[in-house]
Amino acid sequence: MSVNAALEWVGRNEQEGLERLMGWLRIPSISTDPKHREDVRKAADWAAAHLRESGLRIEVCETGQMGADGRGSGHPIVMAYANEDGAAGTGSGPHVLFYGHYDVQPVDPVNLWDSPPFEPRMVGEGEGTAETPGARIVARGACDDKGQVAMFLEALRAWKHASGKTAGGVRFTVMLEGEEESGSVNLEAFLRERAAELKRCDVCLISDTGMLGRKVPAITYGVRGLVYTEVTLHGADQDLHSGLWGGRAPNPNNDLCRVLSQLWDADGRVTIPGFYDKVRPLGEDERKAWAKLPFSVVEALKRIGLGREADRGEAGYSALEREWARPTAEINGICGGYTGPGAKTVIPAHASAKVSFRLVADQDPAAIRDSFFAWCRSKTPAGCRWEFHDHSGGNPATVGTGSKYLEAASESVKEATGIRPVLVKSGGSIPVAGMLKSICGLDTIFMGFGLDDDRVHSPNEKFEVACYRMGTRSHVWFIERMRRMSGH
Amino acid sequence: MSVNAALEWVGRNEQEGLERLMGWLRIPSISTDPKHREDVRKAADWAAAHLRESGLRIEVCETGQMGADGRGSGHPIVMAYANEDGAAGTGSGPHVLFYGHYDVQPVDPVNLWDSPPFEPRMVGEGEGTAETPGARIVARGACDDKGQVAMFLEALRAWKHASGKTAGGVRFTVMLEGEEESGSVNLEAFLRERAAELKRCDVCLISDTGMLGRKVPAITYGVRGLVYTEVTLHGADQDLHSGLWGGRAPNPNNDLCRVLSQLWDADGRVTIPGFYDKVRPLGEDERKAWAKLPFSVVEALKRIGLGREADRGEAGYSALEREWARPTAEINGICGGYTGPGAKTVIPAHASAKVSFRLVADQDPAAIRDSFFAWCRSKTPAGCRWEFHDHSGGNPATVGTGSKYLEAASESVKEATGIRPVLVKSGGSIPVAGMLKSICGLDTIFMGFGLDDDRVHSPNEKFEVACYRMGTRSHVWFIERMRRMSGH
Repeated sequence: MSVNAALEWVGRNEQEGLERLMGWLRIPSISTDPKHREDVRKAADWAAAHLRESGLRIEVCETGQMGADGRGSGHPIVMAYANEDGAAGTGSGPHVLFYGHYDVQPVDPVNLWDSPPFEPRMVGEGEGTAETPGARIVARGACDDKGQVAMFLEALRAWKHASGKTAGGVRFTVMLEGEEESGSVNLEAFLRERAAELKRCDVCLISDTGMLGRKVPAITYGVRGLVYTEVTLHGADQDLHSGLWGGRAPNPNNDLCRVLSQLWDADGRVTIPGFYDKVRPLGEDERKAWAKLPFSVVEALKRIGLGREADRGEAGYSALEREWARPTAEINGICGGYTGPGAKTVIPAHASAKVSFRLVADQDPAAIRDSFFAWCRSKTPAGCRWEFHDHSGGNPATVGTGSKYLEAASESVKEATGIRPVLVKSGGSIPVAGMLKSICGLDTIFMGFGLDDDRVHSPNEKFEVACYRMGTRSHVWFIERMRRMSGH
Repeated sequence: MSVNAALEWVGRNEQEGLERLMGWLRIPSISTDPKHREDVRKAADWAAAHLRESGLRIEVCETGQMGADGRGSGHPIVMAYANEDGAAGTGSGPHVLFYGHYDVQPVDPVNLWDSPPFEPRMVGEGEGTAETPGARIVARGACDDKGQVAMFLEALRAWKHASGKTAGGVRFTVMLEGEEESGSVNLEAFLRERAAELKRCDVCLISDTGMLGRKVPAITYGVRGLVYTEVTLHGADQDLHSGLWGGRAPNPNNDLCRVLSQLWDADGRVTIPGFYDKVRPLGEDERKAWAKLPFSVVEALKRIGLGREADRGEAGYSALEREWARPTAEINGICGGYTGPGAKTVIPAHASAKVSFRLVADQDPAAIRDSFFAWCRSKTPAGCRWEFHDHSGGNPATVGTGSKYLEAASESVKEATGIRPVLVKSGGSIPVAGMLKSICGLDTIFMGFGLDDDRVHSPNEKFEVACYRMGTRSHVWFIERMRRMSGH
């Protein structure tokens, strides 16, 4: 049976696989930093070469505005194809789109790293316990997302070796982005351009999420969407002396606070008219399943220095329910007047806030943005005017719990780890999932193996070998499941 | 008659006087900014040299904690003495304390200045009309307070030249502070130390206020007090990802807005318990006198780019009544979370606001501060904690309308300008006035020549030559009035 050969291969080649990953991690592919532009392309080429060795056809696609040198203004997207539609014997069975990203977050504050972020080190040993990490690679991108993508790349390599066939004969489209950590600014245009091709896929698989604990694998079947806005309230055409004008003229600081404080009612519900109209109600089955998850709200709050009294939000919902199934409004930034040291008696000409909304299916980001701006307008303080800015966001995405691909992913993890994964959602936003749904009609399943303490986006990011092992075996099994659905 | 000689001298030497002032304005004496520490001292020395040339005895006094280098931790106070008590022939007649400050406000946002704030420029020409400014100096401190102090310095210089006597023989104590724009943190200790000496003065004269219009000189007989605080609301012990924690944990930005928005009721009254308990009620006579003043709320708002609908504040009071006789609460600065360009999905660990209160007689700053902090504490959001800071402030101060020095100042302005000044109050705070009253028993008369559109504390601060001229002549006349009261 080929799956055993493939599993045997990944076991035997684990060390080489980790060393390959460390080679990728040495490339500082920080997409937001222009001085790492060539490094980002190197990381793309590295992935392309890996996939080519597993037999896939490769296309390194330019993005953004094309320059005279034939390169785009954006970072490239690596596309790879296994058993393409139309190739002999591949016309039937599932066609899976695997999405990942090869760019990484910046490393600052770099002085908080115990070792240089782009010199990956193997640290510790063993499998770890509930309390302590086991053997792990420490580097920027170790988990997010190179480490998680590498598991799938190794599974492809294993199947090529074990079966002689690319991806074990399963149709795959692989899409690796280089701008996930810098806003995916060119992704939507790319997806629209390739929509016809991508629509031929049946489902999208992403490894960029986490487990619930070291021995608690999880499949994520929904992420929240996002609207990120900036609103500026203007008063006088100049800063005013708060002695001469205090009590006599609009103060945009006072007024912005007063308007934004009305965003929530006493039950923590967002007050914008129609805000909840399209929210898919939380099913009793989901509430019951989530209540059984090994999640402690007290422990979670303790890790951020807070007690149980900080378990706050919309009334009538548990913490997990609020994160996974309920929309929210947050002021991510607020700024107005004098904010330096000491005192300055000023009434500022304007004050600004960055206000974002996490959305759940089936809320529409553009509609929510418009209704927020209209809500602000309806509360314009006398003598003031608004300036609105949309920093964009993404659609929420939730796959139905009856999906056969979701079941296949669950079974794969169970076969690979001996543990049936829990089905969870995430309060975060993965804009590509929303785009794939709205542009290509594709559902996304998140089969990720990160841990809460992997420090993604922070100094000393790590990925544990035990997680890598579970993930690689799960991907081998997922390909096997797709083979069976294809009649192999 | 010496007064004519002195007036003739200031007329003839006006250009030199303005150039002297521009030299002073070139020194960036921003007291709140530690990197300008030496500049502040330079500006003190400049004033000391000017006064010394007019025959006064000078003492540059260190303030704050004394360092090993013989310098204080605070900025110096320049003391200057003319015809000191005990000197021959100077035992009788009035002894006036002149107070001013030589430090200036910060200059940000510096990009809104049309020319560098410390490169004073002479702009425009003529006397200006009701609508348009005339010839003026544009620079930080041009009006507040170097320009206004310079008028008195030139009057002293004129009397020295015209009469051969320092200050025309009148007893003066001059006190120039270097921390007025940064909370006067060392002034109270200094006044207490010098209380015995200062109590020998009869009245304090300050030029740091404004006229009611270009041809409407005014004497100010009362100023508001100030409490300036900074409150920081702390949530988690780290910044949080707003996807994973949005709706699940306290957001200090949201919570700070919600607490501060409750500072005012629907009538614009401050909601802190006991806030109005000690407020001296506004008399009907004052309301009637103020209603007759040539003040147009519409014109005032128009100058700051606003319409009549911006005439907002406590219900039941006119704009002037709100500014002169009613206390107020203002958020001078607010800051929390991500405030750079673009989007960052963060729930910040903390958010801060600078909240100040303008007070009227007989409110007590310390009591108001304590009750504000207690009010915040009573509204502490679950899971959060406060950090409070007092940036200090000052007592309100109002002089009786029957004072002979107030009458002398009025007469001086009338002689100098041909127009009898109106008696007004100011919504601003000049903490020294409150301190001089409570520590030394001195009333303060404010004879100032600024204009509403002088942009004090804002970019492109200016002081008009016509105002400077009126002020210099008024100070020459005030010295003459004091001479007459001394029997000269």
